Amino acid sequence: MYPNVSIDPIQRLILELGRLPGIGERSAARLAFHIIKASCLKQGGAASSGAPSLARDLAAALIAVTEQVRLCRSCQNLCSSEQCSICTDPRRDGRVLCIVKGVACVRAIESSGGYRGRYHVLHGALAPLDGIGPRELKLDEVVRRIQSEQIAEVILATNADVEGDATALYLTQLIRPLGIRISRIASGIPMGGELEFIDQATLQRALEERRSV
Amino acid sequence: MYPNVSIDPIQRLILELGRLPGIGERSAARLAFHIIKASCLKQGGAASSGAPSLARDLAAALIAVTEQVRLCRSCQNLCSSEQCSICTDPRRDGRVLCIVKGVACVRAIESSGGYRGRYHVLHGALAPLDGIGPRELKLDEVVRRIQSEQIAEVILATNADVEGDATALYLTQLIRPLGIRISRIASGIPMGGELEFIDQATLQRALEERRSV
Repeated sequence: MYPNVSIDPIQRLILELGRLPGIGERSAARLAFHIIKASCLKQGGAASSGAPSLARDLAAALIAVTEQVRLCRSCQNLCSSEQCSICTDPRRDGRVLCIVKGVACVRAIESSGGYRGRYHVLHGALAPLDGIGPRELKLDEVVRRIQSEQIAEVILATNADVEGDATALYLTQLIRPLGIRISRIASGIPMGGELEFIDQATLQRALEERRSV
Repeated sequence: MYPNVSIDPIQRLILELGRLPGIGERSAARLAFHIIKASCLKQGGAASSGAPSLARDLAAALIAVTEQVRLCRSCQNLCSSEQCSICTDPRRDGRVLCIVKGVACVRAIESSGGYRGRYHVLHGALAPLDGIGPRELKLDEVVRRIQSEQIAEVILATNADVEGDATALYLTQLIRPLGIRISRIASGIPMGGELEFIDQATLQRALEERRSV
């Protein structure tokens, strides 16, 4: 599919956009026509080469990520230098380590504003049926990191699903011998949730994990 | 927003994707992480420069449209040469001209397979309240084209909404003096439509435009 110059450029853009998740053929065509309208047809029908445009800006941003984005040496989060901004921030509490499934989880927790420690990104969750075992997630690295960085508490913030629970369980067994505090993020009724509309699994979990008041 | 090298490349890609229609901040972040995962993190965390990837393919497709896509000299459809493939196809009936609002309409009619004539793309519809008058749509060009190409029938295939109807009415008055056949695509109940679920406006129109059998 790469540099195939004979294919019609419009069709090619639609094809490429259709490779994005959640973007079907119709959406891809709609996006492509929007991009072409916004980028190519401003100056009396001729392509406006050189001028900044949606297509050029987006292309430049795409090239920039392929050239600059890498994984942080310490936490495996995405960043554009050796270490990410969270790992190098001296105001963050280096003794607390939050282990998450992916970079989107880091983003979500950061935007909640409820955490001031550091992260470790697993880039996946244990899923033996899909061939994802402990080695694929490089879980041993977590242990090495806990030892070398003198971590005092590990927060297991994997998802509240089967894979996330399995990953948390495996990590617990792995970290327990190190004798540090291990916690798992709470699961239960979401804020604003009404009991009558909550699914059964969440309600069960919320009852099991009830807190004394 | 263009070459701002100081901004984080991930944030920049999210921003650029968020400029696409129907893509909010969360979707943009999801797409960006998917692109980065598929493009940058294959070879042990380092950016895989040079190798074909979703990001590079998409960037190349975007650059290609800005460089190659222009408007067809005759019909104003999008194409990558002087004239589009429909205008240059000798098997198409050059005596029938279908006037549509946009390039997406051409695509829709072509995929229906029900038309073998040529097109004229207006790139808009009359909308006086939005400042779009006959001059913005270059409607006079339609008349010039009908005269020079010896068109025998014009099909007004603008949308079945207020602007589309207004545009069709204006074009009718403009073309009537030329003495050629003018038709308007039918509007009514869509195929497979059940009367009890059809909106009032469509039902009214379907009754008004009922055909003798």
